[in-house]
Amino acid sequence: MTLDELPTPCLVLDLGRLKRNLAAMQAAVDRHPGLVLRPHLKTAKSIEVAKLASPGFGPVTVSTLAEARYFAAAGWRDQIYAVGIVPAKLDAVAALNAAGADIKVITDDLAVAEAIAAHPGPLRALIEVDVGEGRGGIPPDDPALPAIAAALGERLAGVLSHSGHSYNGRSPDDMAAIAEAERAGIVAAAEALRAAGHAVPIVSLGSSPTALHARGMAGVTDVRAGVYMFGDLFQAQLGTHAVEDIALTVLGSVIGRSAARNTLLLDAGALALSKDRSTQAAPRDYGFGLVLDSDGRPGLGEAIIARAYQEHGEVRSDAPLPMLPLGTRLRVAPNHCCLTAAAHDRYYVVDGGRAVVAVWERVNGW
Amino acid sequence: MTLDELPTPCLVLDLGRLKRNLAAMQAAVDRHPGLVLRPHLKTAKSIEVAKLASPGFGPVTVSTLAEARYFAAAGWRDQIYAVGIVPAKLDAVAALNAAGADIKVITDDLAVAEAIAAHPGPLRALIEVDVGEGRGGIPPDDPALPAIAAALGERLAGVLSHSGHSYNGRSPDDMAAIAEAERAGIVAAAEALRAAGHAVPIVSLGSSPTALHARGMAGVTDVRAGVYMFGDLFQAQLGTHAVEDIALTVLGSVIGRSAARNTLLLDAGALALSKDRSTQAAPRDYGFGLVLDSDGRPGLGEAIIARAYQEHGEVRSDAPLPMLPLGTRLRVAPNHCCLTAAAHDRYYVVDGGRAVVAVWERVNGW
Repeated sequence: MTLDELPTPCLVLDLGRLKRNLAAMQAAVDRHPGLVLRPHLKTAKSIEVAKLASPGFGPVTVSTLAEARYFAAAGWRDQIYAVGIVPAKLDAVAALNAAGADIKVITDDLAVAEAIAAHPGPLRALIEVDVGEGRGGIPPDDPALPAIAAALGERLAGVLSHSGHSYNGRSPDDMAAIAEAERAGIVAAAEALRAAGHAVPIVSLGSSPTALHARGMAGVTDVRAGVYMFGDLFQAQLGTHAVEDIALTVLGSVIGRSAARNTLLLDAGALALSKDRSTQAAPRDYGFGLVLDSDGRPGLGEAIIARAYQEHGEVRSDAPLPMLPLGTRLRVAPNHCCLTAAAHDRYYVVDGGRAVVAVWERVNGW
Repeated sequence: MTLDELPTPCLVLDLGRLKRNLAAMQAAVDRHPGLVLRPHLKTAKSIEVAKLASPGFGPVTVSTLAEARYFAAAGWRDQIYAVGIVPAKLDAVAALNAAGADIKVITDDLAVAEAIAAHPGPLRALIEVDVGEGRGGIPPDDPALPAIAAALGERLAGVLSHSGHSYNGRSPDDMAAIAEAERAGIVAAAEALRAAGHAVPIVSLGSSPTALHARGMAGVTDVRAGVYMFGDLFQAQLGTHAVEDIALTVLGSVIGRSAARNTLLLDAGALALSKDRSTQAAPRDYGFGLVLDSDGRPGLGEAIIARAYQEHGEVRSDAPLPMLPLGTRLRVAPNHCCLTAAAHDRYYVVDGGRAVVAVWERVNGW
């Protein structure tokens, strides 16, 4: 099977680029002796990608119960479920742990910590610490921190932070500064808990930009990152990789053309691409994606998906577009690979060429 | 089962509101003697919704081959597949037609029309006419129109237009004016083809706003609309229904809270809600959705989902937010119901109360 025979729209994953991206992140993490890469599987949601990103069933991060179940069943025991837990979800996690997994939940809430401690099943939790993102977590010096740790007692597994605000950085120096602030904050939280007599085995932080650009990781045990596997236009704007490193594209067919309007229509619209507009405020606004030829090269110049209807993607360019025959296949590099991938139930894997070398399933939903 | 026991995030559909919305549209269409409502199933993608929207296996519209297969298998023969077709998809449509369906494709391209005419299987096609939207289709007076009709020959089933630009209207008068321009354009195309000797049995136009607000439909045989079934915040901004008519919401759990930041976090983020920002330029910007209490009432005042991360929805309000216990359930009315629904594989159906009276599957993907 080749790209020319696939149903469109569909998701194409370039194996060589994926492997290159995985190696680059591993090399970045290996600069820090003892630091463990705990890949976040929320982007890939795929066993086959996880085999490459976390070989030997190493530590992983997940974002949904569906992922936790799927990867536990496939052999990945050591997981952090890195979205704040609620009591109603504890039974499901405890059941997976009772069956052999070691899925650690996270919380920043005293009542939830008490529910975790009181649960009859096997559970461990990390306390979520806010290091500047301002999304979830409590500050390292919050008086709730020791109270939550005390409530968790023996079930305290460590501390965790997320530095999504690194996405606001625009240079390696910006990222390095944010990474150092995150490191200092999460280590301060761990030290405060150790001073209060707690074991804090896991000190986990993360985001792809900080993982790549951090200059020191003293006191940190593991780093979480996910988007680096595939890359996307937003990450390329941040400078974490080149546009040529984007491993994930959507294959579409030309379903319309208008010389008068200087547009092409693709059968890849809002559902196939997502309506993520991450690049809107970035140095370059790619609309809903950058249009490439079917080999994944910039064969249409600077053409982008300027408008995304449910099933129609409208291609526009400042230059005259070629009026390609209907049925011509093109590929679209996404703004945000996590969201684009989530619209699809499988990857069609290529390895540089047009041959489909594998089909890999994804676990969507919750 | 009640709303309190559902896994979150999930999709909740209110049956009473759905039925009210369906009746309102049917009444609007029934103002025009002989006009047929051909519901667009791209929004609902559900057999159970289709049974209510197109009872007795009436005419329907679909947007993907997956929908065409799914609804044909369930008994809806008379379909228009209203996204420009490409030759590679003709075999699939012809196979469904050979098995008993009557799925009509659409095209605005001479080479595709020739491919349709030359295909050995049973196929019929409508010619897509542009009546001002500027997305797909050719103008009614384009010389390509008779050429495409001639190429299709006996396989010409009619003409079709879409008036998505009605979404730019901001009053019933705006919508009525756009509807009349669309009507005049598509009827002109039909008359031109009839004058050239073609039978043009179907003259189809559509969009929910024009279907509701058109003052005359002379010469039109059927009207397509989909979003009216569920409604959403964008449609409410257009004035096509009230916020209280929105039948579709996402149920989420509070997974975080911060009095200092005046925020709540829900486990309904970008994947559960979509990143559609339709209301951004509307009179009122709802962020990524309007936050309701678990009964679907505006229990949190004017709170909206201000930021949407992959699995986190950040609730913000100009007024102080109640610091609800973690695990509290809330519902979110979506900006754009088609995209929000597509993130989920099923509807949990309620009928005014908290009891789940049914679970209805959806057909996603392509």
